[in-house]
Amino acid sequence: MMKIGIDAMGGDFAPETVVMGAISASSKIGSDSKIVLFGDKAQIETILEREKCPLDTFEIVPTTEVISMSDHPTQAFTKKSNSSITVGFNYLAAGKIDGFASAGNTGAMMVGCMYAVKQVEGVIRPAISSSLPTINGHSLILLDVGLNVDCKPEVLYQYGIIGSIYAKRVLHINNPRVALLNIGEEKEKGNNASKTTHEMMEGTKDFNFVGNIEAKHLFTGEVADVVVCDGFVGNTILKQSEGIYEIAVREGIKGTYFDNFNYENVGGTPVLGINAPVIIGHGCSSAKAICNMILQTEKTIRGNIGSELREILSK
Amino acid sequence: MMKIGIDAMGGDFAPETVVMGAISASSKIGSDSKIVLFGDKAQIETILEREKCPLDTFEIVPTTEVISMSDHPTQAFTKKSNSSITVGFNYLAAGKIDGFASAGNTGAMMVGCMYAVKQVEGVIRPAISSSLPTINGHSLILLDVGLNVDCKPEVLYQYGIIGSIYAKRVLHINNPRVALLNIGEEKEKGNNASKTTHEMMEGTKDFNFVGNIEAKHLFTGEVADVVVCDGFVGNTILKQSEGIYEIAVREGIKGTYFDNFNYENVGGTPVLGINAPVIIGHGCSSAKAICNMILQTEKTIRGNIGSELREILSK
Repeated sequence: MMKIGIDAMGGDFAPETVVMGAISASSKIGSDSKIVLFGDKAQIETILEREKCPLDTFEIVPTTEVISMSDHPTQAFTKKSNSSITVGFNYLAAGKIDGFASAGNTGAMMVGCMYAVKQVEGVIRPAISSSLPTINGHSLILLDVGLNVDCKPEVLYQYGIIGSIYAKRVLHINNPRVALLNIGEEKEKGNNASKTTHEMMEGTKDFNFVGNIEAKHLFTGEVADVVVCDGFVGNTILKQSEGIYEIAVREGIKGTYFDNFNYENVGGTPVLGINAPVIIGHGCSSAKAICNMILQTEKTIRGNIGSELREILSK
Repeated sequence: MMKIGIDAMGGDFAPETVVMGAISASSKIGSDSKIVLFGDKAQIETILEREKCPLDTFEIVPTTEVISMSDHPTQAFTKKSNSSITVGFNYLAAGKIDGFASAGNTGAMMVGCMYAVKQVEGVIRPAISSSLPTINGHSLILLDVGLNVDCKPEVLYQYGIIGSIYAKRVLHINNPRVALLNIGEEKEKGNNASKTTHEMMEGTKDFNFVGNIEAKHLFTGEVADVVVCDGFVGNTILKQSEGIYEIAVREGIKGTYFDNFNYENVGGTPVLGINAPVIIGHGCSSAKAICNMILQTEKTIRGNIGSELREILSK
């Protein structure tokens, strides 16, 4: 049985939206999967009863503390040892669940990733990634989107490996095209980091490098499946997309491609390069966003990225 | 009489679109302004006659050579001494015209800026800027958008000064709000360069610093009038906007805010921090784009940015 660990106390509207999202996800996951909720047992069960949802739909791991959005990540993770996030990570590190997701305190989630789960041996810096919708109905993996804001070329190179494995094993893209985000298509374009990274990537056998991509071609899907950039640039691209979505909503533009920029449809941000699947959700997640976060966690667990990453890096 | 110098041979469809754009602009500029066309006199006059445009609408400075898009910028600028771009810059440096604009070879234009016009004393690195439309009907100045891709904090700080003067004197914004592009609103967020820059900008009396801005708030117009970032990030933001516009066109979304992302409405990119107004147009400029480039050049000349910049930097 595959166990998908979910922080029931994470997010601005927890546990209400998390439990509602989990109920919705429970009918969509595989028959060999089970959602494990970490949180206040009484509160969770009250919602399940109200919704007439059988209590055995979920496994519940009762926890008594909550790391709030304003808590200091490192301190809270250590001191609130019976919090849903800390207990969840302990379960994950011990192999009692196969993946863990939360829409709660992002900093505390990263502390859990680095100290409880740890990075895969050989990975210089883990990354967080995001899935951008493309106009041809597919999506593109962008990494890093905010974890490492000053990336050395060696780190960007590894993101090519990590992103490629994710696209192959989780998104089932055959021989994914990996591009380097740059301000020109020619190899001599860019800043110091992108020029050196291009040299390192050119001719690599670790992934299918297709060259530079400019931001105007991100959304066509014609150039790349995986786009590598430093976390400052990646986060800026992501936030600009969010801004575009908000404008489309304000302008009343519906039923178009721009609907896909709605974060609710994406669900969460996988942390890549660590020893177990972890997904970080949006703080203000709705039940729909939580449902998608859970489904994404299931897909990421099935992808079993770690094994291939360890293999390539140990070469 | 204010003289607006225009490279009639610059751009993919020159001189046709340039002359057509100039005819269109000639009725829109002030009565104290005159457009000076640099290029092949016979070709220019053939178009004017065909359009039944009086020959004295423009001053024509005949040139015999053209710097093509594929020419090496520095070599071509020097060797093609009778090219429209080189002659135009000579006129600008000698004060025989008040500003110069071209949709031709961008590299050669930058060579002209650096060697013929030169940067204002005290400016570490000039910038190129772009005007982004905001949803409240105004626009926002973004700089740098591609000239300096590895910016030191001192350079970013000066961009705050330069952008503020441009917004005040060319866009007539009173006490323009200057923000630093960052991946969070809190001052401790960002990469090394943005953190140090924030420290330098905080409490400055050189411009009205309003703190960090995230890319999702660029288009609302609610946070800032001027946004400072390094050229790699600025160019990426600009190209992502171009990509969004192309998608809106493909999706058949018309009559909305996204129409404003059409570069034709903007016309060109001012080079800021140099001793005279220079505007670089889009290579594939249409007549409409050229017309807007000319109008923007006129506005920039009237702004007389250089005098205030020299004053602040000499303090």
